[in-house]
Amino acid sequence: MTSLAITGTSRGIGLELVRQLLDFPKDQVSKIFAITRSHLDEPLQRLIDGSHGRIENIVIEDFCSALQVQKAANQIQESLHGRGLDILVNNAGIMPASAGKIESVTGDQMLGVFGTNVVGAHMITSNFLPLLRAGAKKLAVNVSTAMGSIAYAPRYTFAPAHAYKISKAAMNMLNAQYALQYAEEGFTFVAISPGWIKTDLGSQYADLEVATGVTSVRDIILKADTSMNGKFVNIRVSGWEEAEGANQYNGAEIPW
Amino acid sequence: MTSLAITGTSRGIGLELVRQLLDFPKDQVSKIFAITRSHLDEPLQRLIDGSHGRIENIVIEDFCSALQVQKAANQIQESLHGRGLDILVNNAGIMPASAGKIESVTGDQMLGVFGTNVVGAHMITSNFLPLLRAGAKKLAVNVSTAMGSIAYAPRYTFAPAHAYKISKAAMNMLNAQYALQYAEEGFTFVAISPGWIKTDLGSQYADLEVATGVTSVRDIILKADTSMNGKFVNIRVSGWEEAEGANQYNGAEIPW
Ligand SMILES: NC(=O)c1ccc[n+]([C@@H]2O[C@H](COP(=O)([O-])OP(=O)(O)OC[C@H]3O[C@@H](n4cnc5c(N)ncnc54)[C@H](OP(=O)(O)O)[C@@H]3O)[C@@H](O)[C@H]2O)c1
Ligand SMILES: NC(=O)c1ccc[n+]([C@@H]2O[C@H](COP(=O)([O-])OP(=O)(O)OC[C@H]3O[C@@H](n4cnc5c(N)ncnc54)[C@H](OP(=O)(O)O)[C@@H]3O)[C@@H](O)[C@H]2O)c1
Repeated sequence: MTSLAITGTSRGIGLELVRQLLDFPKDQVSKIFAITRSHLDEPLQRLIDGSHGRIENIVIEDFCSALQVQKAANQIQESLHGRGLDILVNNAGIMPASAGKIESVTGDQMLGVFGTNVVGAHMITSNFLPLLRAGAKKLAVNVSTAMGSIAYAPRYTFAPAHAYKISKAAMNMLNAQYALQYAEEGFTFVAISPGWIKTDLGSQYADLEVATGVTSVRDIILKADTSMNGKFVNIRVSGWEEAEGANQYNGAEIPW
Repeated sequence: MTSLAITGTSRGIGLELVRQLLDFPKDQVSKIFAITRSHLDEPLQRLIDGSHGRIENIVIEDFCSALQVQKAANQIQESLHGRGLDILVNNAGIMPASAGKIESVTGDQMLGVFGTNVVGAHMITSNFLPLLRAGAKKLAVNVSTAMGSIAYAPRYTFAPAHAYKISKAAMNMLNAQYALQYAEEGFTFVAISPGWIKTDLGSQYADLEVATGVTSVRDIILKADTSMNGKFVNIRVSGWEEAEGANQYNGAEIPW
């Protein structure tokens, strides 16, 4: 009887996560709040139409608007009839590529990426805390990336995503702060690296099909408990556990 | 014959760093560009007056304005007659305290702290790269903090500086990115944790007098070479090397 809210469900990882969660029986995954920033692209609409009310679309145009995020939280609260939300997944994110080295990143670009990837996740999390507090799992998952690991930075010099890497290191600290501050209430905050996945963001050159990467993300989300609080974990994909460097998907913790 | 540019020199660590560098003979520290965002508070003015032209004030009102930062770089270039700048110190920073847990941080606060502490440092660094490239040391020092270490986050739960910690974790990734991308040109990028110092930011309850902490910061800056590229180092203060947790100043590298 788990309920989840997931951001960035119009496409990519978020959409596939909704699709895979719907495959679980209703007594396991009872309700999915699929958050988008505009009204409904076709693929999500089709999933909703076939979901017998288990998927509900929630629109938040601007994550940085406390008013809009609060309104969405109220909408979810009403829909759950006071039962509380079990799991929040902060998945929405952007990764603009830079043409050159980091010096080519403008201040506005750096602020914009941080605004979406970190402030966005923070606004959703902070305003959804009361909902999660009333839930059975008190779990929030932040979809980060191994590219946000400072320790692993030498592995990712090939990727010209400078502002993105900076934002995801910041997201990892955001996750750590929430994890420390709400542990005593029984909350679990987990940062996940979903692997390099074939989405608009990941490109067609990525390692993994969307379904493959998301299956592991989904399993981590559904299994996470308080023992995972504050951790930053890699996905696990059969056949990729022993790969070197950037392509290793072994389910292990990733260093900061 | 070293030249330095330092941001945030109106007070605190930046001001004291200017003061201590001025004590070196002119053939060791030839020129200090003391960057402020408004025209000259009294203490810096007095230092300048007694500096025989070795300190020059450079005003940048808004670090996020590429135009203003570029203008400042040009001013420094002219003043150096093409000799290049040896060392840049990104010291300016803010640490607004939060009344409660991280949920009380507004989106605007989080964006603002990131804007000053990370985007500001990035704007200065990116626009000063040509000046540094022409210099003898090619050294940029980012004044970070152990509070920006995700690994050390449990040590700092007492400090309600949520947005600050997030911004400094991001600054550490900024430092790492620059370090990796410009190593082959002979650049050195170092992140320093200056210790808990009695400034407006550090408060009167801090561990160290300004002069004590800054002496170690100064020594790290003057000794840094390419072997330090990409590192994140603690200050070293006699008597504090063996302290536990947050108060340990042992000169060692700090984990991310
Ligand atoms: N794909 C990978 O290889 C990979 C690797 C590591 C981490 N990740 C992380 O996984 C997450 C999802 O990535 P993805 O690959 O699925 O990317 P994607 O296919 O580009 O989808 C991004 C999703 O985020 C939403 N979004 C973007 N900006 C937004 C904003 N300002 N406000 C609200 N929603 C916004 C998008 O909505 P619209 O359709 O409205 O734009 C879309 O639903 C991201 O956090 C990303 O950093 C991905
Ligand atoms: N003190 C500590 O315990 C401690 C510990 C760890 C790290 N640090 C780091 O050390 C650095 C200096 O801190 P401090 O203790 O010397 O702080 P401080 O006494 O509060 O001084 C801060 C300096 O930064 C400047 N500044 C602030 N916001 C600015 C902006 N938006 N644009 C340009 N300049 C700006 C201030 O200029 P105005 O006078 O114009 O405001 C001032 O010169 C910071 O990066 C801080 O994070 C300090």
